[in-house]
Amino acid sequence: MNIEEIIENVTKFIENKQIKDLREYLETINSADFPSILEEVDEDKVIMIYRLLTKEKAAEVFVELDHDDQENLINCLTDKEIKNVMNELYMDDATDLIEEMPSNVVKRILTNTKPSNRKIINELLKYPEDTAGTLMTTEFIDLKENMTVDDAFAFIKNKALKKETVYNCYVLTIDRKLLGIIDIKDLLIADREKLIKDIMDTNVIKVNTLEDQEEVARMFDKYDFIALPVVDQENRLVGIITVDDAIDVIKEEATEDFEKMAAIRPDDDGESYLKTSVLKHAKNRIIWLLVLMISAMLTGGIIENYEAAISSLPLLVSFIPMLMDTGGNCGSQASTLIIRGLAINEISTKDILKVMWKEFRISIIVGITLAIANSIRIMIQYNDVKIAVVVGATLICTVIMAKLIGCVLPIIAKKIKLDPAIMAAPLITTIVDALSVLVFFSISTSIFNI
Amino acid sequence: MNIEEIIENVTKFIENKQIKDLREYLETINSADFPSILEEVDEDKVIMIYRLLTKEKAAEVFVELDHDDQENLINCLTDKEIKNVMNELYMDDATDLIEEMPSNVVKRILTNTKPSNRKIINELLKYPEDTAGTLMTTEFIDLKENMTVDDAFAFIKNKALKKETVYNCYVLTIDRKLLGIIDIKDLLIADREKLIKDIMDTNVIKVNTLEDQEEVARMFDKYDFIALPVVDQENRLVGIITVDDAIDVIKEEATEDFEKMAAIRPDDDGESYLKTSVLKHAKNRIIWLLVLMISAMLTGGIIENYEAAISSLPLLVSFIPMLMDTGGNCGSQASTLIIRGLAINEISTKDILKVMWKEFRISIIVGITLAIANSIRIMIQYNDVKIAVVVGATLICTVIMAKLIGCVLPIIAKKIKLDPAIMAAPLITTIVDALSVLVFFSISTSIFNI
Repeated sequence: MNIEEIIENVTKFIENKQIKDLREYLETINSADFPSILEEVDEDKVIMIYRLLTKEKAAEVFVELDHDDQENLINCLTDKEIKNVMNELYMDDATDLIEEMPSNVVKRILTNTKPSNRKIINELLKYPEDTAGTLMTTEFIDLKENMTVDDAFAFIKNKALKKETVYNCYVLTIDRKLLGIIDIKDLLIADREKLIKDIMDTNVIKVNTLEDQEEVARMFDKYDFIALPVVDQENRLVGIITVDDAIDVIKEEATEDFEKMAAIRPDDDGESYLKTSVLKHAKNRIIWLLVLMISAMLTGGIIENYEAAISSLPLLVSFIPMLMDTGGNCGSQASTLIIRGLAINEISTKDILKVMWKEFRISIIVGITLAIANSIRIMIQYNDVKIAVVVGATLICTVIMAKLIGCVLPIIAKKIKLDPAIMAAPLITTIVDALSVLVFFSISTSIFNI
Repeated sequence: MNIEEIIENVTKFIENKQIKDLREYLETINSADFPSILEEVDEDKVIMIYRLLTKEKAAEVFVELDHDDQENLINCLTDKEIKNVMNELYMDDATDLIEEMPSNVVKRILTNTKPSNRKIINELLKYPEDTAGTLMTTEFIDLKENMTVDDAFAFIKNKALKKETVYNCYVLTIDRKLLGIIDIKDLLIADREKLIKDIMDTNVIKVNTLEDQEEVARMFDKYDFIALPVVDQENRLVGIITVDDAIDVIKEEATEDFEKMAAIRPDDDGESYLKTSVLKHAKNRIIWLLVLMISAMLTGGIIENYEAAISSLPLLVSFIPMLMDTGGNCGSQASTLIIRGLAINEISTKDILKVMWKEFRISIIVGITLAIANSIRIMIQYNDVKIAVVVGATLICTVIMAKLIGCVLPIIAKKIKLDPAIMAAPLITTIVDALSVLVFFSISTSIFNI
């Protein structure tokens, strides 16, 4: 069923005042579809619909809303309703909420959170941004090594309802050190009297609370995890990260790379394009534009030095855009592939020579092809061999420089612990522009003796 | 334990001929770490290490290798060993393998695959590229609605070993129509005598075999699935897609967008940068470079029309790179944000006016700021108000044009069912270049009367 049909049905139930039917109907809708639905109904209906949901569903739907809508909703809810939501939320979602709400709302939320949860939230809030600690939730199934499989099933039956995932269970010592991990599948196929310690997997891959979230996402991608255990400095299990949160990180990191590679300062708060204000958009874009504009003046300065040449052969100027654009495009092709390769671990910094040799050979093929195409066009249009030679030679040099600079700078950036994504099209283009104009006029002036 | 340590240990075991210890040690290593390990040991050791693995592990490791290494390995294995691997592979992995191997290898693989599996592989091979059908595997837990929870546990205990996932179980009619879905958690907390039909969730979100893989990835992201059921045209459950495959698609689609946005034709076979040959790299890059180079000649043509102006005031030329670069950067900022927003469903085509209005306001702020910065610099360097005014006015026009073109073209592309990622920096830059040069010379010639 698509969103339009759902909205139509909901509206019909409301118009006909079929509240009981609406309540039942709402339970059948996936929580992830609610934001699009609530956006389409009148504002006064939103809170009415929300109040019809069961406690569990209300919490699920709440997590799906964006921060503005969450704030609006909280302002409409009673203390008791907030209490219900807060009791149902998983700790990672509760912590996210606290982080994003304005302080008066936070105060009201915390007053309506039970003290034990408040303590956990306060602990989670302490982890530095973008670390495993901020991604994890504290609800997981913890077994003891001397339990039998039967004991474990009984334990899970009792506890599972309040745990975010049961797919992986963790075996802990009394002081909560992580001994092993059991996939629920292995528990299901094991004989009932077996001991947990005999079926658990002790080769546990885990991360520290302070691990960077990008590395966490890479591990999910590499090892195909459903959940990843997070331990503190003393190897005590303090939480788990579930695969849905890893997907969010993968998406978020890719978006950040797209932004950086287009000379945009990525937004920390992760608001969507439409929700970000005009002023913030302008602020995020203007800094790099200024830096690049000033750098581009260098190319202008080079051109100024050749004013005499331009005056005597103004036709030369008409090749500058083509040379600049081609150089920029060649450089950005190389840098994009390298930056992406570094991001998804297909290329490492020790491959630098291999990459350069590859780009050099590619640029020879590309450069010569483009030069031939250009020479043909110049011969047809101007029938001037000298110009064809100058432009062709410049093109080949430009392509080689662009590809080499485009592949080397991101790797160097990574080596000196900078973000490779900064060394993308905009910066590469600016550098290559200056060089290609310089090469162009050097060759022109010497061949034409101007 | 990191890869370097593992390799050191493995080498030590081999040197000391401690084969039994090595065999035990290898079992403790995660399959996903094997490619990096095998790459570092001598070639003759690779097959020796591989032969020490248990059947299950051997299949797991095989899946992790890239296509070249798989081919090399198959060529070293006996028919019996290939049979073992093929019996352990999940159907989606087996199908991927068949798709990527050269025909002589495929023949040998299929001869060593049992007939029932061969039939499934042949079915899976029929699905068009990049559809749900090519992502899915056919191994899943299928329950009947009249089973009790206890029956279900017994059934799972028997079958689970050969199923890719037990986290979600599917309830089917006799003719394999999908009735409902049960998360293993709900099965674990249910009373043993309850009937499956009473605890299953009948609001199943599913996809058709022909659904595009990009849409599949979006659904995983939106609904936080662990697995997604795939049905045929008759609503019969034919397979499931697991979240690890969805992550691969998310990564692959982002990489493709990066490539397209840098004017690179994405590679269908998804080989990594280093594995792709120089000739293929050149081929993937050259087409767009040619198109863009020829388009950039348009800008050159415009400049040619103003040769008189250039001869009388050659200084004008030195501002062209700055104007072109700034226009290109502004356009690529806008287009990147819009393309990414469209890709992750944060922006839809019906937002076009909202987006344009936003970009217009942003470009006013950005344009004026840049114009002021530039005017100050021109006044300091040349102390010439007229030039400051001309360049400033051109800058503001360029920024507005760049941002509007940059945001509109991707949305229009999406509307007419083209890939928005084509309307990225390279093409936008080329268009904006021509326009900004035109505006620059129009304003210059009228103000300077040249």
